[in-house]
Amino acid sequence: MARQTERASRVEIIGLRLPEIRRGADLAALTLRAARKQGETLRSGDIVVLTQKIVSKAEGREVTLRGVRPSALARTWARRIGRDARYIELILRESSRVLRMSDRALVVETRHGFVCANAGVDHSNVAASDRVTLLPEDPDASARRFADSIRKRTGARIAVIVSDTWGRPWREGQVNVAIGTAGLRVLADWRGRRDTFGRLLTATVLAVADELAAAAGLAMGKVDQVPVVMIRGFRFRAGRDSARKLLRPAKHDLFR
Amino acid sequence: MARQTERASRVEIIGLRLPEIRRGADLAALTLRAARKQGETLRSGDIVVLTQKIVSKAEGREVTLRGVRPSALARTWARRIGRDARYIELILRESSRVLRMSDRALVVETRHGFVCANAGVDHSNVAASDRVTLLPEDPDASARRFADSIRKRTGARIAVIVSDTWGRPWREGQVNVAIGTAGLRVLADWRGRRDTFGRLLTATVLAVADELAAAAGLAMGKVDQVPVVMIRGFRFRAGRDSARKLLRPAKHDLFR
Repeated sequence: MARQTERASRVEIIGLRLPEIRRGADLAALTLRAARKQGETLRSGDIVVLTQKIVSKAEGREVTLRGVRPSALARTWARRIGRDARYIELILRESSRVLRMSDRALVVETRHGFVCANAGVDHSNVAASDRVTLLPEDPDASARRFADSIRKRTGARIAVIVSDTWGRPWREGQVNVAIGTAGLRVLADWRGRRDTFGRLLTATVLAVADELAAAAGLAMGKVDQVPVVMIRGFRFRAGRDSARKLLRPAKHDLFR
Repeated sequence: MARQTERASRVEIIGLRLPEIRRGADLAALTLRAARKQGETLRSGDIVVLTQKIVSKAEGREVTLRGVRPSALARTWARRIGRDARYIELILRESSRVLRMSDRALVVETRHGFVCANAGVDHSNVAASDRVTLLPEDPDASARRFADSIRKRTGARIAVIVSDTWGRPWREGQVNVAIGTAGLRVLADWRGRRDTFGRLLTATVLAVADELAAAAGLAMGKVDQVPVVMIRGFRFRAGRDSARKLLRPAKHDLFR
């Protein structure tokens, strides 16, 4: 009577290889082409995770250091830690608040409200050695455009996450996190639900979008040109949350 | 000549349902039985992620509040935030340092060196309402025993992660992180590697074990009794790292 085999929940994480991305690139078209080449089809309910780097490149968010005039603060600090003052200047321009200045990084609040090292200004995987990428202007909008484009071309309703790889306090190493989202609720709120023993769960709110981004990180790799990842089989709640919903307001934050 | 279809890296995350865990339970045996029931087999190269909760229960790390005598500090603080003083007392006993005391949580350094809320002392999903679980004494040893037991029974060499669901500064929601590990390198160090353009990557160290734990979190759910997750298809570097390697030494930490 009882089922002999009960299938478990199964989530698949599939990395897609894209060619080098240039300004104006159509990421949705390139993703569909990559998927086809790898024998995959995007379906409704899939989640696509894009690295910040390719979104920024496609959106022209690359800056040449040559044209940047550093402020006095940027010059002083750059001298102190032995970095390029123009790079420090760009970080400061992308920031609305500096939390910590150390010899390894500036920890800042970005104009979007994210707290991260160096405001996400990044000089890895950029073609020219005096170029850096900035975070997308509006990563939610980037995610939304991508989702809309996929829907127009294929009919599939997908969720999209723009992710970046960031450090965190207390723990070594970086993890992939969500900085832009479309089509899903970013938090799964279990407050008010009952646990296995019928007692109310009081404090459990899961950062689903960050766990999805981290899972995608497993397939991305840093040198392998896998900047797009499909996640299939994860039942998420559809919604229109901004990734900013993942940001803790400063006044509730014990570490700001 | 060129391959028409090049298969992508594909990682699978498979949740396993276990019965309620009691003290002395043989988690490896129960995991193998659950896998079989779900039509799965553990193979060398798989990673198994276990929730802290079942490890603690199996190891008898449950405490009844009734027998706990709170200290003066615990009593004072509990009164101030409206919590049970015996619960606060247990948190303090599990801590080696208190970072923040707020009305929502005590953020502490545990005896293991982890920084987390309430020292991991948890009263959800515990059978009696005056019982709580403590973190395993030595989560690495728990992971190692599990891996050894699987190897003895099946010959499969797997990696094991004991995980817990923790909050973090700056961002809302909790994510699953690694607190005990066996059989893998917990950090993937890209420093010294070259990016796609041949330039040295200077700052990229990925917290692989935390990304694996977060990915497992997608299949776990809080009320669904999926306390064990298999991850298949992720090529990790074998090793003997302790999860403590994920802990940033306090003197390098800008937020401690």
